[in-house]
Amino acid sequence: MTKKIEVCFTPELIHLHQLDGKIIVVVDIFRATTTMMAALANGVESITPVENLEICREMSKSGYIIAGERNGVIAEGFELGNSPLSYLNNAYSEKKIAMTTTNGTVAIEKSKKNSAEVLIGAFVNLRATADYLKSKENDVLIHCAGWKGKFNLEDSLYAGALVSLLSEKFEFDCDGAIAMKALYEANQSNLKGFLSQASHAKRLQNHNIEDDIDFCLTLDKYDIIGKIKNQVLVYQKVESN
Amino acid sequence: MTKKIEVCFTPELIHLHQLDGKIIVVVDIFRATTTMMAALANGVESITPVENLEICREMSKSGYIIAGERNGVIAEGFELGNSPLSYLNNAYSEKKIAMTTTNGTVAIEKSKKNSAEVLIGAFVNLRATADYLKSKENDVLIHCAGWKGKFNLEDSLYAGALVSLLSEKFEFDCDGAIAMKALYEANQSNLKGFLSQASHAKRLQNHNIEDDIDFCLTLDKYDIIGKIKNQVLVYQKVESN
Repeated sequence: MTKKIEVCFTPELIHLHQLDGKIIVVVDIFRATTTMMAALANGVESITPVENLEICREMSKSGYIIAGERNGVIAEGFELGNSPLSYLNNAYSEKKIAMTTTNGTVAIEKSKKNSAEVLIGAFVNLRATADYLKSKENDVLIHCAGWKGKFNLEDSLYAGALVSLLSEKFEFDCDGAIAMKALYEANQSNLKGFLSQASHAKRLQNHNIEDDIDFCLTLDKYDIIGKIKNQVLVYQKVESN
Repeated sequence: MTKKIEVCFTPELIHLHQLDGKIIVVVDIFRATTTMMAALANGVESITPVENLEICREMSKSGYIIAGERNGVIAEGFELGNSPLSYLNNAYSEKKIAMTTTNGTVAIEKSKKNSAEVLIGAFVNLRATADYLKSKENDVLIHCAGWKGKFNLEDSLYAGALVSLLSEKFEFDCDGAIAMKALYEANQSNLKGFLSQASHAKRLQNHNIEDDIDFCLTLDKYDIIGKIKNQVLVYQKVESN
């Protein structure tokens, strides 16, 4: 039987989807899931996605490095913000991170119910995630974190990119998947230019984090996947096929 | 001040949008809003969108012609189904229609709250609607009826078409509008081919209503707009500009 792939554009619509037995790929390109993958690829032991600053602060007492921003600046008392660049060169190798995100954490929590597995998706490990999904028997649902409950361009285009890579092996009888596959394929040669129109990219540009944006739109930098195990995110090596 | 245009992909997300003072364009291409425009263009006096078959049947006692389908066939005791073709050649000129739709009626009801006006949008009167919106001072929100609460391709592509026509006169700082404008512009020369992948188009093809689909994807057949006034839908002539 052919495996199926579908796309949900925001956690506000996830209740309309059946999650049972599926692998859910959560994506929040700017910047939560990209930062998570950068951290895991740079030797971080685990990442615990956390709802708010207060829980993070509590966890710092138990030895966690805490990461979080509010309004574009590192939160008071926090060691790290939301930039993927902070983790490069194994800067936090073997550390446990507690990371607070807004849209991303909601999407991860809502993805757990009855699903087989929850993965973290980003452009930086796009092909590794695709290869892993090809090797499994499960149907796939790409769950975009969106922006305050609404559709956003960068997460949806990632969904299109993943559908595009999987389209030979999966059925995609889902209008969101069809639309985003076509949109990604038409704009993949100029992803940054196309995405520069997006509302979130504009917000980030206002914060002078052009380098973060470039990093978030880099394809296939890492050959690992990120997977939630026992409530925390860890990495897993993938054999390419 | 520049006017703004935004897109909401389904009634399930409309609560995230501010409707106050805006003109809401409700779209349900296959087939509710297309059928409504065909009816109005063929002399129907008014259309009352109705939630269910029972209310329609009651209204038939007061002289309304009742229209509705369930599972692809005309509902028992109903004179009309959901086909736009039934109204051609002024077949129901000067009649009052009570029409039951599923996704369309929900979208219309949810569009009324605090909005300035509610219009009905379809490809058959795309340019007339665009011209009307250009002539007004209000911000615009395109409200896609979707399919069972989810994104659907045909309604979203209509949104992209309308944004494309209005992009010079309106700001569209909305990722849904950016995505669908790009998708429409890339596929407008082969709208039917592209949409034939869509899940709803496939369902309709199974019901042998190819002629309905062709009609629903015809551009600018009519130069009127459809507007809700006092709970019913009536037409209004538009001067082109």
